[in-house]
Amino acid sequence: MNYQQLFEQITKKRSFLCVGLDSDIKKIPAHLMQSEDPVFEFNKAIIDATAPYSVAFKPNLAFYESLGSTGMLSFEKTIRYCRENYPEIFLIADAKRGDIGNTSGLYARAFFESLDVDAITVAPYMGEDSVTPFLAYPGKWVILLALTSNKGADDFQYVTQDGKRLFEKVLEKSQQWADQNSMMYVVGATRAEMLSDIRKIVPGHFLLVPGVGAQGGSLSEVAKYGMNSHCGLLVNSSRNIIFADNSEKFAEFAAREAANMQHEMDELMKMHSI
Amino acid sequence: MNYQQLFEQITKKRSFLCVGLDSDIKKIPAHLMQSEDPVFEFNKAIIDATAPYSVAFKPNLAFYESLGSTGMLSFEKTIRYCRENYPEIFLIADAKRGDIGNTSGLYARAFFESLDVDAITVAPYMGEDSVTPFLAYPGKWVILLALTSNKGADDFQYVTQDGKRLFEKVLEKSQQWADQNSMMYVVGATRAEMLSDIRKIVPGHFLLVPGVGAQGGSLSEVAKYGMNSHCGLLVNSSRNIIFADNSEKFAEFAAREAANMQHEMDELMKMHSI
Repeated sequence: MNYQQLFEQITKKRSFLCVGLDSDIKKIPAHLMQSEDPVFEFNKAIIDATAPYSVAFKPNLAFYESLGSTGMLSFEKTIRYCRENYPEIFLIADAKRGDIGNTSGLYARAFFESLDVDAITVAPYMGEDSVTPFLAYPGKWVILLALTSNKGADDFQYVTQDGKRLFEKVLEKSQQWADQNSMMYVVGATRAEMLSDIRKIVPGHFLLVPGVGAQGGSLSEVAKYGMNSHCGLLVNSSRNIIFADNSEKFAEFAAREAANMQHEMDELMKMHSI
Repeated sequence: MNYQQLFEQITKKRSFLCVGLDSDIKKIPAHLMQSEDPVFEFNKAIIDATAPYSVAFKPNLAFYESLGSTGMLSFEKTIRYCRENYPEIFLIADAKRGDIGNTSGLYARAFFESLDVDAITVAPYMGEDSVTPFLAYPGKWVILLALTSNKGADDFQYVTQDGKRLFEKVLEKSQQWADQNSMMYVVGATRAEMLSDIRKIVPGHFLLVPGVGAQGGSLSEVAKYGMNSHCGLLVNSSRNIIFADNSEKFAEFAAREAANMQHEMDELMKMHSI
């Protein structure tokens, strides 16, 4: 999916919601635990319920890998289910990978060839040759960690040389590797006040913004400082949507939460004349 | 395995060799491709052949994940095979993970509970709460990326504030989270000249050193600048050993390469009175 197609989906659905499929098996409703693949059954129901209100889904690999090869099978089935039933949805593998060139190349092959996701999150610490192998796939995206939503972001991401903080250096340097047509950045909603600084460096890029809801970030603040003329935002919500309820009606509750966010997003887009 | 036990293995085997199980299915000898699980059969033969000369094995997850759930099964079988047959070997999951706290916790559970490896490599970009969940397991280790062996290391790892480079800040800051009994650092052999600077900050820690051989690093340089009174080094070699040959005699050739390195390591240890 390219930049323009993503923007079209956003304007069509009046939403820039990304639903995080952080499908922790310990939180899945009890009645699903009898099925052969509870994680996949859960995801399928969440996807069906929330797809009308979302433009993206983002499974975090940790929740699947922690179940070993069984979990990876649930992950693969989830990706395939999305692709077949909701081809217009932008699929993000939240993997935070990054290794020396030939090894990153293998991860790229896994996620973009075998699995056909649209984007993968990548950690920048190892620099250019750890990132560029993911950029060799036309129509696919790298979402590079810039300023994350967690407390630990303070430890290294603000290290400053010549008046520029590390996350700003990541934003600047990485523009030598790809432009806004194949690169996005992770910026935590808990750092919304930094978004105006970030927009000075990457005015046109899409930003993937986690941290709204459970982690305390505010959607209206994110839109205020981060929205551009092409929206330029994918705001992720995980727990608040997928674990809104744990009865047999969990999917209905998830749909309601997603619809609420979509409604708020529609209002914010109108305020920005989108 | 604790610090003292690891040192004892090193002195017993006269080796600080870590064999990297970067078992790329495209490079596995043809005659193994008929078996049900070629990657596992390959690993088993390599492990049996090189265990006498090594103190550690390090499968890089990318080579397994790139084969999907099948590959993860090969990975799990490899770990179990090592654990059962070579309980004295130090097992490193080279995963370069790192995510917000609750998510890193899931990775920790996967690698330390379900799989029982001794150590996992972790990327530092997201800071303290992305690393500490891995430190909650007694006897287990975090191996934190500090200065990597690839060219891209130049992009961000040398960003300097107050005379300290980012990799030095990683070394310093992370000592607030754990000491040399549960933390090691990745330092690329291609940066051997930096090892003396690094030893000023972490004199007693073990360092995991990739990049000898295929990537151009020199073993004697690494020992010269990096060895301490407890050796303090695990030097990794992957391709040079495991793909030394691709005939039916591949394991014999791998053993010969590992033995050569062990011999050189023995000499270097003697020079350092170990």
